[in-house]
Amino acid sequence: MAKAADIYFRTDPWKIVEDRFDPAHSRMAESVFSLANEAMGIRGFFDEGGSVDSLRGTYTNGVYDIEPIGKSYRGIITQTHFMIPSAEWLITVLKLDGETLDLGRVRFRDYRRELDMRTGTLRRSFVWETVSGKALRVSFLRFLDMTHRERACQRVTLTPLNFTGTIDYSTRLSFNVLHEGYGRCYWQETRVDGAPGRAMLQSGTTRSGKELFAGMLVSLPEDSTFRAEEKTAVLSASLVLTEGTDTVVDKRAVLLFNGLEGNALWNAGIAALDAFETSSVDEEAAVQQEYWSRWWATSDVRIEPSGKSTEAEVSAEQQGIRFCSFQLAQTYNGGSMRHNIGAKGLTGEAYNGHAFWDTEACCLPFYLLTRPEAARDLLLFRYNTLPMARERARMLDCRGACYPIATLSGEEACSLWQHASLQLQPSTAVAYGIWHYVHLTGDETFLWQYGAEMLVEIARFLASRVERGSKTGQYGFFGVMGPDEFHMMVNNNAYTNYMGKRTLSFAAEAVERMQAQKPERFHALAAGIGLQPEELSCWKRIADGMYLPIGENGLIEQHDDFFNLPHTDINAIPVSQFPLYDHWSYDRIYRSDMIKQPDVLMFLFLYNSSFTKEVKRVNYEFYEPRTIHESSLSPAIHSILAAELDRMDDAVKFFGYATRLDLDNYNRNTREGLHITSIALAWVNIVYGFAGVRTDGEQLSFAPRLPDRWKELSFSIVYRSRIIRITMGREASVFRLEHGQPLEVRIYGKETLLSDEACRVSAIR
Amino acid sequence: MAKAADIYFRTDPWKIVEDRFDPAHSRMAESVFSLANEAMGIRGFFDEGGSVDSLRGTYTNGVYDIEPIGKSYRGIITQTHFMIPSAEWLITVLKLDGETLDLGRVRFRDYRRELDMRTGTLRRSFVWETVSGKALRVSFLRFLDMTHRERACQRVTLTPLNFTGTIDYSTRLSFNVLHEGYGRCYWQETRVDGAPGRAMLQSGTTRSGKELFAGMLVSLPEDSTFRAEEKTAVLSASLVLTEGTDTVVDKRAVLLFNGLEGNALWNAGIAALDAFETSSVDEEAAVQQEYWSRWWATSDVRIEPSGKSTEAEVSAEQQGIRFCSFQLAQTYNGGSMRHNIGAKGLTGEAYNGHAFWDTEACCLPFYLLTRPEAARDLLLFRYNTLPMARERARMLDCRGACYPIATLSGEEACSLWQHASLQLQPSTAVAYGIWHYVHLTGDETFLWQYGAEMLVEIARFLASRVERGSKTGQYGFFGVMGPDEFHMMVNNNAYTNYMGKRTLSFAAEAVERMQAQKPERFHALAAGIGLQPEELSCWKRIADGMYLPIGENGLIEQHDDFFNLPHTDINAIPVSQFPLYDHWSYDRIYRSDMIKQPDVLMFLFLYNSSFTKEVKRVNYEFYEPRTIHESSLSPAIHSILAAELDRMDDAVKFFGYATRLDLDNYNRNTREGLHITSIALAWVNIVYGFAGVRTDGEQLSFAPRLPDRWKELSFSIVYRSRIIRITMGREASVFRLEHGQPLEVRIYGKETLLSDEACRVSAIR
Repeated sequence: MAKAADIYFRTDPWKIVEDRFDPAHSRMAESVFSLANEAMGIRGFFDEGGSVDSLRGTYTNGVYDIEPIGKSYRGIITQTHFMIPSAEWLITVLKLDGETLDLGRVRFRDYRRELDMRTGTLRRSFVWETVSGKALRVSFLRFLDMTHRERACQRVTLTPLNFTGTIDYSTRLSFNVLHEGYGRCYWQETRVDGAPGRAMLQSGTTRSGKELFAGMLVSLPEDSTFRAEEKTAVLSASLVLTEGTDTVVDKRAVLLFNGLEGNALWNAGIAALDAFETSSVDEEAAVQQEYWSRWWATSDVRIEPSGKSTEAEVSAEQQGIRFCSFQLAQTYNGGSMRHNIGAKGLTGEAYNGHAFWDTEACCLPFYLLTRPEAARDLLLFRYNTLPMARERARMLDCRGACYPIATLSGEEACSLWQHASLQLQPSTAVAYGIWHYVHLTGDETFLWQYGAEMLVEIARFLASRVERGSKTGQYGFFGVMGPDEFHMMVNNNAYTNYMGKRTLSFAAEAVERMQAQKPERFHALAAGIGLQPEELSCWKRIADGMYLPIGENGLIEQHDDFFNLPHTDINAIPVSQFPLYDHWSYDRIYRSDMIKQPDVLMFLFLYNSSFTKEVKRVNYEFYEPRTIHESSLSPAIHSILAAELDRMDDAVKFFGYATRLDLDNYNRNTREGLHITSIALAWVNIVYGFAGVRTDGEQLSFAPRLPDRWKELSFSIVYRSRIIRITMGREASVFRLEHGQPLEVRIYGKETLLSDEACRVSAIR
Repeated sequence: MAKAADIYFRTDPWKIVEDRFDPAHSRMAESVFSLANEAMGIRGFFDEGGSVDSLRGTYTNGVYDIEPIGKSYRGIITQTHFMIPSAEWLITVLKLDGETLDLGRVRFRDYRRELDMRTGTLRRSFVWETVSGKALRVSFLRFLDMTHRERACQRVTLTPLNFTGTIDYSTRLSFNVLHEGYGRCYWQETRVDGAPGRAMLQSGTTRSGKELFAGMLVSLPEDSTFRAEEKTAVLSASLVLTEGTDTVVDKRAVLLFNGLEGNALWNAGIAALDAFETSSVDEEAAVQQEYWSRWWATSDVRIEPSGKSTEAEVSAEQQGIRFCSFQLAQTYNGGSMRHNIGAKGLTGEAYNGHAFWDTEACCLPFYLLTRPEAARDLLLFRYNTLPMARERARMLDCRGACYPIATLSGEEACSLWQHASLQLQPSTAVAYGIWHYVHLTGDETFLWQYGAEMLVEIARFLASRVERGSKTGQYGFFGVMGPDEFHMMVNNNAYTNYMGKRTLSFAAEAVERMQAQKPERFHALAAGIGLQPEELSCWKRIADGMYLPIGENGLIEQHDDFFNLPHTDINAIPVSQFPLYDHWSYDRIYRSDMIKQPDVLMFLFLYNSSFTKEVKRVNYEFYEPRTIHESSLSPAIHSILAAELDRMDDAVKFFGYATRLDLDNYNRNTREGLHITSIALAWVNIVYGFAGVRTDGEQLSFAPRLPDRWKELSFSIVYRSRIIRITMGREASVFRLEHGQPLEVRIYGKETLLSDEACRVSAIR
C-alpha cells in the first residue's frame, strides 16, 4: 500500500482535537467534526459561516431530490436521485464595531475545536481581536439529540476580555441552501412565519415531493426582531456584553420530516417546537450525556498498549476505533426501516447519500453483533424496496428482483451503466444478509414473513441472468463486474458465481423448509408471486452446476483469463497517481492484474468456514500483492484474513489504515465526507480479525490473536439475548457472559461453555 | 438476416420516383431525395415547408459547433462537436386566395417527385386545388452545382389550369434554423442586407468560430420587396399568373464557407453572388448535366438481367447500385483535404456528421479504384489532424497518435468512452489506408512526405498500448472493442492484434526503406519527432510476437474465450426486436456469441491474400451464422467473401441488402439520413465480390463470378493511370484497357497481359 497518513489532529483517546486552524484542511476537518443522530446530520462547518473553504452541509435522512438524465440505452437509468442539503439551522452572524466575524478575514488567537465522543458534542472557541482593538472570547457548542431526533442545539457564549459594549447578533434558519454539485437550491415555495425569538419555515423539494418543517427558538433579549428573507427566517438583536462576563445565547432547532405534508406537517412542527420549549439546552445536554455514556458502556472497544508500542501509537488506534464506533452510532441505529446507510452517511454530498452493497457486506456484522434489531431494520429496508428491485430486473430483461448498486429510495440511482448493469453483488449481498441475520439470530419469523419473498425474487433474477458457457457447458455469470471494480464485462467472476450459487441453494432450501414448516405462509407466498415447484429444482440445478475456477493448489482465478492479464507492479506506481481514477486514463485501469479491492478474498471472508486455511493462504498470497486498496473497505478484509493466516504484521498494518482512514485522510478525499461504511469495517476488523470471531459456522467461534503492540484488547458483543465480554491479554483471553444464559461456543476450534463466570483461555502464539 | 425491405419507390434504372406522397414515409423520402455537392447538402424536404413531418436539413461541409460535456474520468471527452444545420436557402411560401400551400393541409393531385441521377436534379410537381376552386400546377426543380460548389439553384414554375390571377410569392434565406437533436439554433449575430431580388446574410457559430456567408438572387418582378427578419432575409412579390401559361421564378443561392471571416468573407460572398449573376439557371443546368454525363461514362456499373431473374429484380439492383454511386459522388470527390466522409454524409443530423473508420475500411477502395487523388485527399485529412490524434493518445496515457472513432474536426467527438477509448481500429485503419494507397498507386512521394510520419505515430501508439499476457508472454491488446461492437473490454481481439501486427511491421519497413532511399527526408522526420532506432526494432519484436489465436483447423477465436460465450440463436430473435440497441438491455447485447458485424472476417477481407481459402471458409462458416448484421457495412463484406467461397446464394442475398439498404429502408432508420459509408461498400461489393478484384496482393487480380440472375455486369476501374473496362458475361469476361499502357494482372490466378485489345477469359463455374 502506497498510501500515507496526513496527520492533522491531536491524538486523544476520547476526543478529536484541532488546536490550530489550517484553512487548507478546512473541509477535511468539517467532515471529521460531523455530527449526526440518524435522522439528521451536520458537517462541522463554522457557526458563523464566513469565507473559509467550506461545504456547509446539513442533511435530513431520507430527504432527496431527482434530476432527469437523457435517455440512452435500455437498462440505463433515465433519472437519478440524491441527498440534498436540508434546512440550515446553525448560521449565526456576529458584528462588532462594524467588523463581521469571519475566520477567513479577522484576527483571532487561542483557537480550539474539539469533538467529545463521550458526550456527542462539538465545541469551538477562540479570541476574536477586532481592528478596533477589542478582544472577545467566542465559544460555540452544538449537539444533536439522540433521543428526540428532530432536535438540535447550539449555544453561543460571548466573553469580552477588554471591553463592555454591544454586539450585533443575528441567527438564521434557511431553506435557501445550494446543492454544491448541481449548483442549485432544490427547495421550492417556502412558508415563513415567526416572532422575536421564534421562527418556523416549511418547504418542499422540486421533483421528489418531500416536505420538511424547520423551527427555531433562540434566547434573545425582548427587543430582538424577527425578519423573513427568501426562504429564510432571521432573528436579530443587539446584545450588551460586559467585560469578563459570559453572555449566552441558546438556539434550539427542530427539523421535522415525518411523511406529513401541508398543514398537517406545519401543525406537527409547531407542536414539536412547543414541546422543545419545555426543555432547556442544559437539560438536553444532560440527556445527551446520559445516552452516550450508556452507549459506550456496551459498545466501547478498549486497547491497552504493550511495551512494544509507543503510547502515542496505541492512543491513535484507540482514538481511531472509537471515532469509527461513534460515527456508526450517529449514522444508523435501526430507528427506521425507511433508511439505509449512505456510503458517506450524513456527512457530505459525495456519493449522493447513496447506500451500496457495503451495507450488507460491511455494516451488517457490526449491527448483528451489537444491536440485531438494527440489522433487521436494514433488511426491512430491502423488503420495502422490493417493488423497485423488481422493476429494475425488468429493465435488465431479467425476472425477479435486482437490487440497486446505489440508492436512497430503492430505485437504481447509479448513472454509470457499467456499475448499475454489471454488478450483481447488491442482490447476492441482500440474500447473504438475510442468511446471516437468520443464522445468527435464529429469527425465523423474519425469514417466513419477509426474507423468503426477497430470496425467491433474487433467485429468480439470478436464474434469469445466469448462462452456460458454450464450451464448458457450466453455469456462470457472463458480462459482469465483481467487487474488484477494476475489471468489467468479465465472465465467470468467481465471487459472482460463488455468491450466486450459495444464494440459489439457500433460497431453494429456505423455501422448502418453509413449505414443510409453515405451509399456510408458503402457499400464500407461492400464490402471491406465482412460485412454481420447478423453479426450486432449477435453482438447485444451477447451484450444483455453477462453475468455480479453483485450481489443484486451491488458487481461484478471479474470472476467466485473469491469470493471463498483463502484470502491473503496484509498488512502482507513484503515490501522486492515487486515486487512480483521477490520474489514469479510465480504460487503462481495467486491463491488468491489479485489483482495487478483495474479490476472491471477499467471498473467502463471507463464507469463511467453507474454505480451508490453505485455500485462504494461497489466494491471499496471490491476490494481496496485486491489490491497491483503492476502496476503503479493502484493508479491513485483508487484515482479518491476515490475522487468520498468522500474518500479524499485515494484520496490524491494514488495521491501522482502516481505523484512521478519515482521521488521517489516507484517501485524500475526507473533505467530501466520512467513509461511513468503511468505518463499520474497522470494528469488524477487530472483532473478526484480532478476536477471530466467525459467525458463518455452526457455532459462534473465536480465535483471539493479540498483536504484539497491545497488552490488552476488550469489547462486548451481543448474541442471542446474551452479552459476551471478551478481554484479550498477552497470555490469555477471558470470556464472560455479562447477560443471558450459558452458551456453547468454539474457542480456537474447541467447544467451550461460556457463563457469567470468567472463562480463561490461554493465548495461542 | 431477419431484416425485410420496406418498398416505397418505383423501380427505374436511372431515377428514384415517388408517384404518391405518403406522410408516414416523409422523412425517409427526404433522406433518399437528398442532394449534395461535397461542399453542401440538402435533404429532399418540400420547398414550401409546411406541416408535413420533416427534418429540414441543409448542411455545409465543415460547419459544426461544440457542446460541453460534464467532466468524468480521464480520457473521456469533455466536449463534443457535431454538424449543425446551415443557412436554409430553399423555403418558398405560396399563398393563393388566402390559402397557404402546405401538402399536409391542402388538396392536391398528380403528385410526383423524382431524382434524376443522370442530371443530379430533383423535381417535384403536383396540382394544387384550392378551397376557392382554383387549380394551379406547381413544379419545383433544384440542384447543387458540382463545379462551383458554393452555388445552388431552385426553379419554381407555376401554371394556372383554370384561372388568371395573382399569387403571393415569398422566398427566404435564413440562419434561424434549429438543430433538431439539441433543439437550438447555433447561429449567433447575423448581418442581413438586401434589396428587391437580392439578399445577403452572414453569421457565425456559437463556440466553434465558424463563419458562413449566404446570398440569393431571385427573378422576381420589379415591384417585389426585401424584408429583414430575425437572422433571415425575405424577398416577396405578388405574381400575376395567366391561365395555361408557365410563370417561372428562379432562385440562385450562394453559401460560401472558405475560412474567411468578417468583412473579408462578406466581400468574397458579394463577389461570388455577382459572379453567379452572370450565369442563368438554364446555363447552370446545362453545365450540371454535362458534369454528370462525364461522371457516369467512367463510373457506371451496368447490370443486364439473365433469364433467371425478373426484369424488375435486376432493375431494382441496377437502380440500387446507381443510387449508391450517385450518392458517393455527391458526398466526396476529393475536393478538399479539410473534410472527411460523414457516416450519413450531408443528409441528416444522425451520427452528427462524424466520420468513422469506415472511411478507410469501406470507402477508400472505391476512391482508390475510381479517383485515387480523392483517396489521397482523404488520407491528407488524417495527416492534417495528426496534432489532435497525438493529443488524444496522451489523454489515453499512450504515446504517438490515436485517431478518433468519430470526428469532424480531427478531435475525438464520441462521448461513449467504451467506443472512444477501446476501439483501436481507426488508427490501424489509417495505417492500412496509407499502405493500401501506396501499394495500389505507387505514390511513394506521399509516403515519404506524409505517410511515414503518420505511420510512426500510429506505431508508437500501438507499441505503448500493447501489453504481454502474464501466462502466454505474448503480445496482444487487452481491454479493447473490435469491429464487432457487441463485445467490449475483451482481450486479444484477433482483428486488433492482427491489424496491429501488420501496422507495426509496415511502419518499421517503411521507415527503414525511407532511411535507405530518402536519407535527408528520413533524418528530417527523425529529428522532428525524435524517432529512435530502437523504436523500429521494438515494433518488429512486437509484430513478431503478436498473439493470433488460430486453431489447427484454421478457425480464429475472435478474442480470448469467445468460444465459451453463451450461444444466442439469432434466428430466434423476432424482427420486432431490431435494432437490438433499442430493445435489449444494453448489457445483454454484450455477453453472447452473437456478433454485430464482421470482425475476424473483416481482416480476412482486408488482408485477403495473406490467408488461404480454407481459412476463410472455416471462419465464414463459423461466424456468419452468428452475425446479425446490425451494422450496415456487414452484408457487403459477407457477400464478397461468400463470392470468393463460391457461395453465390449468400453472395447475392447479402448484395441485395447492401445496394438497396436505404431505398428499401432495411434498417428502418433511413429517415435519419443515408448510410453513405455503407453505400460505398455496395460498389466495393460488386468489384471485389462479383468481379473478384483483389488489391492487396502483389498484382492486381480478378476472379469474376457472375450470379445466375445476371446476363452481364460491366464497370471500369482506374489503376496506375490506366482505365480497365471489365465486362462479365455468362460464358466469359472481357477485359480491355480503355486508357494507358499494357498491364500484367492475374485473372483466376493466372498472369494475363491487358491492353487496348479485348482480352476474353472464360468464366469459371
